[in-house]
Amino acid sequence: MNADILKERNNSTVNLDHMKNFLGRILYGSEERFHELMNLRDRMVSKIRPISDENFYNLDRDEKYEIIYRKSLEIFDFLKENNISPDSPDINKLGIIGAVLGPEKILFTLHTAAFKVSIDLWGTEEQVKHWHSIMNSNYVVGTYIQTEIGHGTFVRGLETTATYNKKTQEFILNCPTLTSIKFWPGTAGITANFAIVMAKLIIDDKDYGVQAFVVQLRNLQDHKHMPGVETGDIGKKGGFESHDNGYVKFTNVRIPLLNMLAKNACVHPDGRFEKTGSELIMYACMLLLRAGLCSFGNCLLSLSITIAVRYSAVRRQTSNLEGIEPQIIEYQTQQYRIFQSLSTTYAYFFASNYLVKHIINVKNITNNFALIKPADLGKLHAISAGLKAQTFNSCLRFAQINRLCCGGHGYSAASGLIPIIQEADAGCTYEGDNVVLLLQTARYLLKCAQKGISPHLEFSFQSELKKSSLYKFFQAYFDIYHTLYDQLISEISGRMFSLVNETGLTEYQAWNECTVQLVQIAKLYVSIFIIWCSLSDINSNVDKNNQEALTELFELFVLYEITEDYSTNIMRLSVVDADQMKNFSERLYLLLKKVRQNAVVLVDSFNYLDSNLCSALGAHDGNVYEKLFDFARNSKFNQKEVHDGYTNILKPYFHRKKLRSHL
Amino acid sequence: MNADILKERNNSTVNLDHMKNFLGRILYGSEERFHELMNLRDRMVSKIRPISDENFYNLDRDEKYEIIYRKSLEIFDFLKENNISPDSPDINKLGIIGAVLGPEKILFTLHTAAFKVSIDLWGTEEQVKHWHSIMNSNYVVGTYIQTEIGHGTFVRGLETTATYNKKTQEFILNCPTLTSIKFWPGTAGITANFAIVMAKLIIDDKDYGVQAFVVQLRNLQDHKHMPGVETGDIGKKGGFESHDNGYVKFTNVRIPLLNMLAKNACVHPDGRFEKTGSELIMYACMLLLRAGLCSFGNCLLSLSITIAVRYSAVRRQTSNLEGIEPQIIEYQTQQYRIFQSLSTTYAYFFASNYLVKHIINVKNITNNFALIKPADLGKLHAISAGLKAQTFNSCLRFAQINRLCCGGHGYSAASGLIPIIQEADAGCTYEGDNVVLLLQTARYLLKCAQKGISPHLEFSFQSELKKSSLYKFFQAYFDIYHTLYDQLISEISGRMFSLVNETGLTEYQAWNECTVQLVQIAKLYVSIFIIWCSLSDINSNVDKNNQEALTELFELFVLYEITEDYSTNIMRLSVVDADQMKNFSERLYLLLKKVRQNAVVLVDSFNYLDSNLCSALGAHDGNVYEKLFDFARNSKFNQKEVHDGYTNILKPYFHRKKLRSHL
Repeated sequence: MNADILKERNNSTVNLDHMKNFLGRILYGSEERFHELMNLRDRMVSKIRPISDENFYNLDRDEKYEIIYRKSLEIFDFLKENNISPDSPDINKLGIIGAVLGPEKILFTLHTAAFKVSIDLWGTEEQVKHWHSIMNSNYVVGTYIQTEIGHGTFVRGLETTATYNKKTQEFILNCPTLTSIKFWPGTAGITANFAIVMAKLIIDDKDYGVQAFVVQLRNLQDHKHMPGVETGDIGKKGGFESHDNGYVKFTNVRIPLLNMLAKNACVHPDGRFEKTGSELIMYACMLLLRAGLCSFGNCLLSLSITIAVRYSAVRRQTSNLEGIEPQIIEYQTQQYRIFQSLSTTYAYFFASNYLVKHIINVKNITNNFALIKPADLGKLHAISAGLKAQTFNSCLRFAQINRLCCGGHGYSAASGLIPIIQEADAGCTYEGDNVVLLLQTARYLLKCAQKGISPHLEFSFQSELKKSSLYKFFQAYFDIYHTLYDQLISEISGRMFSLVNETGLTEYQAWNECTVQLVQIAKLYVSIFIIWCSLSDINSNVDKNNQEALTELFELFVLYEITEDYSTNIMRLSVVDADQMKNFSERLYLLLKKVRQNAVVLVDSFNYLDSNLCSALGAHDGNVYEKLFDFARNSKFNQKEVHDGYTNILKPYFHRKKLRSHL
Repeated sequence: MNADILKERNNSTVNLDHMKNFLGRILYGSEERFHELMNLRDRMVSKIRPISDENFYNLDRDEKYEIIYRKSLEIFDFLKENNISPDSPDINKLGIIGAVLGPEKILFTLHTAAFKVSIDLWGTEEQVKHWHSIMNSNYVVGTYIQTEIGHGTFVRGLETTATYNKKTQEFILNCPTLTSIKFWPGTAGITANFAIVMAKLIIDDKDYGVQAFVVQLRNLQDHKHMPGVETGDIGKKGGFESHDNGYVKFTNVRIPLLNMLAKNACVHPDGRFEKTGSELIMYACMLLLRAGLCSFGNCLLSLSITIAVRYSAVRRQTSNLEGIEPQIIEYQTQQYRIFQSLSTTYAYFFASNYLVKHIINVKNITNNFALIKPADLGKLHAISAGLKAQTFNSCLRFAQINRLCCGGHGYSAASGLIPIIQEADAGCTYEGDNVVLLLQTARYLLKCAQKGISPHLEFSFQSELKKSSLYKFFQAYFDIYHTLYDQLISEISGRMFSLVNETGLTEYQAWNECTVQLVQIAKLYVSIFIIWCSLSDINSNVDKNNQEALTELFELFVLYEITEDYSTNIMRLSVVDADQMKNFSERLYLLLKKVRQNAVVLVDSFNYLDSNLCSALGAHDGNVYEKLFDFARNSKFNQKEVHDGYTNILKPYFHRKKLRSHL
């Protein structure tokens, strides 16, 4: 093991095993389950060769696709052998599947998480039975198709039509315009053969809104397109090389009446349309998906900071007075950047896992959300939308900073940092554009303010927690958050009121004029959720040293937010004065040094295997240069001593010139 | 043309032709030269097929490399036919070469900008003649090799040795350790056959520091490695797919005495070492390179914002009260994000071009920097280092925001945004890590403060400008910057003094403890440079409407900086009070609407061809969906109706299972 990283581990006050168990319990529900799953992970990775052993990041797109395709099937088989459903939320954590796939995703995620789930949620009992029987007796790879080339966030704007034909009792699907061509759905291009398709239901020229239809895209014999269906991959993207995203064009595609999922709305054979259920439950079910996404996004960030912290301990750069190059983790600018990332990923870890557990709990006590109160749904929607947005905003921001903190080598694909940034980038858009989501949160907050009710989740732990010494230590900080929230929301409400009543704008216009500020209040609301969840979990840690290390890290998180993210509003609204702000900065600089002592063990506690990280720089043993050089040697450009570029281009060019020219 | 983008163009108050000429004059020195070069560009692009017509972003790395290789040679030939040197700074602007290569770079950039330049700068007269004669009579592709796998920023830490052998009058090059293997130099892996190699000179076991050596890497007959030389590509990276970056390992590579570039230091045949010149001029020559880099980095940002603004005018999303989906440029959150980018790229445009012209001027009046005063050099180093860092920091930040502002389609490679982000990301590290550069700037600022002298460049235009009504309009803003600068630098100096004299830290430790703040002061210093350059250029614009549009945009830039980047320090140091800060925000929201009227024409004024942008979303005619769909259809995954993934994986898997299984 590299001597520098060993020294970091030896100097830490953190008890690693205890910290791993603590985080494992929060992530997987109990220590027993955690150990069970880690055992499963180790068996899986001994059976299925991880992509980190496949020179994966040096490969071309076709090769990556085939590798992920094969390994996805192997993982499914392995899970089946172990009697575990691939839908199990436990398994979908990056920590387990990621031991084989690194930050890559299973190719069939949409089959289980969207295609099957939609049928189960939106289908009648008869339909669920029917489609499961088809799935059980055929090799169905399903996906979920909604967005169109001209339409994203705004579902009502979708143009693809499903026109009901009474005579034949069929729907006829069409993409009547260029903008109505379906675009982006995962695996719809070349992999999937079935799909849920969202389309506007038309009966007798009347529009009954967007409904869900099961449509076969390719036949099960030879994977060729069904009549009237054109699908294809949409080409390269900012990432996701191993996955196809599809475009799909329907031209008079006929599907039977049965294929419209009819639990909430149905079409009778004679063409009568009937609302049969509430869409509320549909929305409620999205909550769990979104909370899971928060957990996933933060896992990405924790992968990225594991790499950056370990490399910062190993890398030496520039000379001190004695002519020795210090570890770069010694530098304040480095600490300032990477510890912000580290403290953020811990805080979001507590928050996202709290949210997941809380929503599962709500689901259980409301009979699969059937009995959920609309007010509770509003609250949960507000926090889950906001937390999803802030998770991916943070992940993108800090994963990028982590790459910069690793210098040149961070830019090599061997660093493992690139696909994390790419996924975080996409995550700011997929499953709801972050700005749109934050504005949904803000709309709820504004309504609450107007009604004079609190938008915050009521934590069952709160009254107990407030008695703790830990809370007393943080109380002044918490007061800053809450005071700022109250002042900001009242400022925005006041401004909107004045825009309508004094400037004469419509409510719609006034809303738009306040959206920059509304995004801010939504972010602050999410922060408040995060600090309460964090404090509660840290308070539950029984190892004194570990609790202290977490407390330092958490205080650092709070100080970053106060001195950086919210400082302008805090000072503008006189929540704290200039001297206090200066003291907070001094305190922050002091905490950097304390956190530095435990940083390596704090990332070790995430318990990732090297095959999770897929990173030369983040290797547990710190032998980064060997691995970097190995990766280099495995470049596909090195397959021959003389690359075809010379043979095919430079040499003939030179001869063609017939002159001993110079460039 | 798309009706929405046409409407934007018709509604603008800006005179497009005049604005193009205005920017062209600043960029190329005169309107005549600008038109000459645009003419050259149009001829070039009619002769050499641009990469935007080659399905480039859908290709694999090998194919990209070969295309850029071929087109680089074609461009060299074209320039030669037109009697223009490829070294000409005019030509290297992204606007010209980019008409063929988009944001990609010529493969031989390091040959002209580093290999040849180093020989010319560091070689004796005899050496320059010798190497030019070799270059003239052979097909030499040169590069510049410095960084090692374990050593980047810190040049003195390089481990590769060049040991002088008196008997044979040769140097023997070795990479004695893993960490000493050369890593990252562009084209050194598979393309180049010659290189400047930076290595530690050893004579009789004594270390004479890092010197420059000309080393042949591959022979000129068949491109195979020279004895003792191992080179290879380092593998995939976060971008630059079309370029090889190399690793190079030397094992007892023998080169003649003549190959050490000896203008500043030489080795006599008997082994005597002699300093023969000053390194000052070497550093001075880097100034122009760095200023050119600022201009290049900002060009990238202007490409990216051109795409984002045009797409924002075309894209419609979400419904207003009338059920119509507005152009997304209508939304305040969209305006707030993209106009920050737009105002930034204009401000940096003025600043970077001022710096280039200023340094060329200094070069001319100091006889190629031979007579430059050390004090002037310090000043120029401080501003060029800082501006390079801030240019790429801004470019990365805003190019990423622009991608997010384009929603899902921004993530398609068809958007053209991805390679811009990738280049910006790399640019934050290459040619000097941004944090390291900002700290170099800060070190200079601190020294100036201690000596009581001003670090700011003296602008020849300043006294005249101060009389203008434009200056009077901005004076209050300028005062905020200058007051803040004075207060911040004195605060930092005070803190350092107290850390040394009261806390008892060493100067070295105290410096490290203040580096987070020192980065801030360096950024502010750069901002002050930018606002003066911007105001001067805007004041020189004689078209009243255009000047007004630029003034609004510039005020917006200043307001972003005051309310966002510097707001915490501004309020903490009581430079403005809470009410003023609130007024600034209101003013900013108002200006968003004004800038919105001219945004499309302001990006049209950059005068990029569609082939510069390589973007479906940024197309001049606004027909984005056609182009996006074209790109999708051209995905390599669509070459067959049934992808090999099905044939090679799913089908055999299914058969192997011999069961009609379900996933």
